[in-house]
Amino acid sequence: MISKLPVLFLLVTAAASAATVEEQVRAVLDKQVEAWNKGDTDGFLDGYSVDTVFVGEKMTRGVEDLKRRYQSRYPTRAAMGKLGFYDLEIHAMGKDYAYVIGRWQLERDQEGGGNVAGVYSLVFRRTAIGWKIVLDHTN
Amino acid sequence: MISKLPVLFLLVTAAASAATVEEQVRAVLDKQVEAWNKGDTDGFLDGYSVDTVFVGEKMTRGVEDLKRRYQSRYPTRAAMGKLGFYDLEIHAMGKDYAYVIGRWQLERDQEGGGNVAGVYSLVFRRTAIGWKIVLDHTN
Repeated sequence: MISKLPVLFLLVTAAASAATVEEQVRAVLDKQVEAWNKGDTDGFLDGYSVDTVFVGEKMTRGVEDLKRRYQSRYPTRAAMGKLGFYDLEIHAMGKDYAYVIGRWQLERDQEGGGNVAGVYSLVFRRTAIGWKIVLDHTN
Repeated sequence: MISKLPVLFLLVTAAASAATVEEQVRAVLDKQVEAWNKGDTDGFLDGYSVDTVFVGEKMTRGVEDLKRRYQSRYPTRAAMGKLGFYDLEIHAMGKDYAYVIGRWQLERDQEGGGNVAGVYSLVFRRTAIGWKIVLDHTN
């Protein structure tokens, strides 16, 4: 078994680098949903670039301000609810950028404020530390 | 004079191709505003890709549906009002894509429905017939 590990490692590495832009971006979104649904706001925010711009009712600049926005709007696990992304369209723009159109929903009980849902569009950029959201327009 | 025309032509051509992505995208937006403010909806829509996606309160796909949306929401010159784009940020993504964040405003008299304003984000793609909006998220 041990002698086969390097081969396995090579295969896994090859598979990762063969992933398409769409698959890599999708993996970031899946990780965000998983983190949110564990109450892990930092894990969720890991999908954003440090200098991200969030366009909502007003504009939020930088991941630190975005963190404050999320903490103020979703202060409890009940308010965070269960996040889902739906109807995702992921479009590669060359090798280093992609845009995404999708729908989001938070399933929440009455204590959490009830269900909410909307649409969003994102721009992703490939960075040295992975694919990151540089623009999030959500409503 | 006539003998200098080819030189002038070369200079103009060189200047056009030397325009940055940001300048080229800005020129499309300027043309859109100019067209809108002449009541020229087709000229305005010329900035969009045929298969553009418009994300508003609901999603509109394709420039033909977008045209119907604009004609139904802005049926008269009074309803169209005077369009302005403000606080534009244009970010090149390589040579063939760009995204834009900005604010829009329609100055309208009471007959037109009064002033309205909002924010938008766009994704532009360079095509054989110029830079076109492939994603418009407006609210």
